[in-house]
Amino acid sequence: MDLISIDDLTDAQIATILDEGDRWFAFNRQPRRNDHRLDGLTILNAFFENSTRTLLSFEIAAQRLGAQMVTMQVEMSSIKKGETLEDTARTLNAMRPDALVIRHGTSGAPRNVAGIMDCPVINAGDGTGEHPTQALLDAATIRRHFGRVEGLRVAICGDLAHSRVARSNGKLLSRLGADVRFAGPPSLLPKDFDGSGSIDEAVQGADVVMMLRIQRERLDEDLNDGPGEYLARYGLTAERLAKAAPNAVVMHPGPINRGVEIDGALADDPERSLIVTQVEMGVAVRMACLDLLAAERLA
Amino acid sequence: MDLISIDDLTDAQIATILDEGDRWFAFNRQPRRNDHRLDGLTILNAFFENSTRTLLSFEIAAQRLGAQMVTMQVEMSSIKKGETLEDTARTLNAMRPDALVIRHGTSGAPRNVAGIMDCPVINAGDGTGEHPTQALLDAATIRRHFGRVEGLRVAICGDLAHSRVARSNGKLLSRLGADVRFAGPPSLLPKDFDGSGSIDEAVQGADVVMMLRIQRERLDEDLNDGPGEYLARYGLTAERLAKAAPNAVVMHPGPINRGVEIDGALADDPERSLIVTQVEMGVAVRMACLDLLAAERLA
Amino acid sequence: MDLISIDDLTDAQIATILDEGDRWFAFNRQPRRNDHRLDGLTILNAFFENSTRTLLSFEIAAQRLGAQMVTMQVEMSSIKKGETLEDTARTLNAMRPDALVIRHGTSGAPRNVAGIMDCPVINAGDGTGEHPTQALLDAATIRRHFGRVEGLRVAICGDLAHSRVARSNGKLLSRLGADVRFAGPPSLLPKDFDGSGSIDEAVQGADVVMMLRIQRERLDEDLNDGPGEYLARYGLTAERLAKAAPNAVVMHPGPINRGVEIDGALADDPERSLIVTQVEMGVAVRMACLDLLAAERLA
Repeated sequence: MDLISIDDLTDAQIATILDEGDRWFAFNRQPRRNDHRLDGLTILNAFFENSTRTLLSFEIAAQRLGAQMVTMQVEMSSIKKGETLEDTARTLNAMRPDALVIRHGTSGAPRNVAGIMDCPVINAGDGTGEHPTQALLDAATIRRHFGRVEGLRVAICGDLAHSRVARSNGKLLSRLGADVRFAGPPSLLPKDFDGSGSIDEAVQGADVVMMLRIQRERLDEDLNDGPGEYLARYGLTAERLAKAAPNAVVMHPGPINRGVEIDGALADDPERSLIVTQVEMGVAVRMACLDLLAAERLA
Repeated sequence: MDLISIDDLTDAQIATILDEGDRWFAFNRQPRRNDHRLDGLTILNAFFENSTRTLLSFEIAAQRLGAQMVTMQVEMSSIKKGETLEDTARTLNAMRPDALVIRHGTSGAPRNVAGIMDCPVINAGDGTGEHPTQALLDAATIRRHFGRVEGLRVAICGDLAHSRVARSNGKLLSRLGADVRFAGPPSLLPKDFDGSGSIDEAVQGADVVMMLRIQRERLDEDLNDGPGEYLARYGLTAERLAKAAPNAVVMHPGPINRGVEIDGALADDPERSLIVTQVEMGVAVRMACLDLLAAERLA
Repeated sequence: MDLISIDDLTDAQIATILDEGDRWFAFNRQPRRNDHRLDGLTILNAFFENSTRTLLSFEIAAQRLGAQMVTMQVEMSSIKKGETLEDTARTLNAMRPDALVIRHGTSGAPRNVAGIMDCPVINAGDGTGEHPTQALLDAATIRRHFGRVEGLRVAICGDLAHSRVARSNGKLLSRLGADVRFAGPPSLLPKDFDGSGSIDEAVQGADVVMMLRIQRERLDEDLNDGPGEYLARYGLTAERLAKAAPNAVVMHPGPINRGVEIDGALADDPERSLIVTQVEMGVAVRMACLDLLAAERLA
């Protein structure tokens, strides 16, 4: 099986990943983590877009399960020599990895690659497509905090047009029974997202406010806004958060732009912010995903 | 011992590498590959030229034998700070690796480095010099397909002037008893290669047609050709392949330029193309090479 | 505990690191090095400045103790996306590494990061601040050669203004009882260094002459010197070394500029130069540091 989109997962598989993610979360807080279930397996990371947290997160996840981990350097890629993505995939496949983790700037690229690879493929983010492990770690983080996802009101706010995080989270949280509302600048609101676009409306009564990263380039190009103007109009301020539910929490996939999409003080508020927990859960949930996909292969 | 050139190997060593390569090829197709013969040894990769497949191939090979693998980042190299290659080699040597894998843009650089290192050095490609592990994997791939190398007709076609692959393959396949013929554009035909330059003549009756990569820059600079013109004059087309032996196979060290040195359909033809098998055999043969060189060290 | 500055270490800890460094030095010369004391621990390298030897040295050190080692690519850093160093640290911390090794161009950055991280932080060089593991390996190298540090005369010469190596070595060697004298071009002599600036005076009777690297850019900008002029005025020549003690040795943190801060022949003189031994001791001393810091964590 592949994990390209949230749609690839059955409800049972989602439940397994969330449960196992919780278990690995506790495991990772132990002084030593000796697990060798993926001994003798090779996990290959192919990141065609830059990333700090996601690449590191997968690397650590693979190592903690005992897998051998190899990362293809973007800078060293034959892509630069004019090789097609399909030919790169054939080459990687011939090296017989047991799982491929791929990030790519073009929506749909991981699905094309998965069509060529014999091993499971995990999408670590494709263009404006999906980022399923981000959604899974977000759901696990929410569930860990509230004890459930079902019945929660979740506002996903920001640059929806370019957000694979929003797309995957929308699918997953809805399936888990959350009431998901989207909001963002009208010029960055794609047609297939349901929402008024008003962040004030979306945040109203929300249990979770998930802010999305805005590329600074877009402030000029698409919005003609300065950072402060964006924060005031579309970002998360204390005033705006006051409209949410009393115990509402703040989330962000990172890296955050302080003072742009979120007031830095809210990001740092230990009572409110789950941002750091998201990163910690990221390693745990990716361990669960790698284990699930590789287990099928070893069966 | 070092593996800088095919000339460094005895016939017995070549036979061992090809036999062991076959064995690792089968090993790598198992669900788990647990081999620990190089446990506690450090393999150091120093790639001064970009590479996807060769670097990954060596990294996977080293890991599958249980070795610790460290890769020196080109971008981070002190070379950029004006350090001489000899001083870099002395530094790397002082870290006491058990083998050094080096790729370098200057012909002869690996031999110079090997003169400084106490451990075995493997040349992963030097300028227009040699690329001995590529030749070994090509020979192993040919032998796996035909059951032998001896007596086969092999045409090596393309940019011979800049091809370390051609040089190493010429040496190795000749020693193994193949009838090797070279062909390529006259302006890219070095004097020390024996051949008329006519690809049609070289392909005539060939059992193996090995096409070489042409740098796209050379099309303009050296040939004044477009991609399509190069394909028609010097590349491998179905029409040209029809002149080869009935069961002739197609090889290429990759990455391929579709529609330049080879018609993409031929590269993809499962009946004809061994290109993907070459990559798979690459990991296996490099395991055999690392094992051979390290074993001597552990003796 | 963290190792940001030599000041962070007690005398007992320094003694332990030097003793253990000696032991690992011998261990690393064995055919196989199987030590698993850091099994199940994750060491994270975050190098915000380029480095060949220091990064490789830490990577090899971590692996030889059985730790899992992950390196954050500078090029892939979210820093480029405008993330603050503090936010990067929070992200790295959430991945629950067991030690963080950091190099950063800004003096003080590792201390700031250590204030955020729950795990031990090792400074692998910060701006013009400190480079404590370099000083420890230098002290261990001196002690291995002379059998002691106490009572030795050590001249540290060159670009003191930009040298974290000089600062850390000054502190450590003085604490170990050496008589440390500094010298360098007047325009590159910071006020807090005690010294006349005259290299001839500093070298007079010295047992150890430690030369510092000069950035070639500074020759023009700060000194209006050519390489040869710098060597004649401030570098180490045979003539100048003749003023040192009869058995004086030459050291340099590398990478060396031959013919600038040091005559190449002196760097290569096996009777005089400890430069290569410094690199070898580097891996050993870093193993001792990682072991010391992680041991506390496992206790």
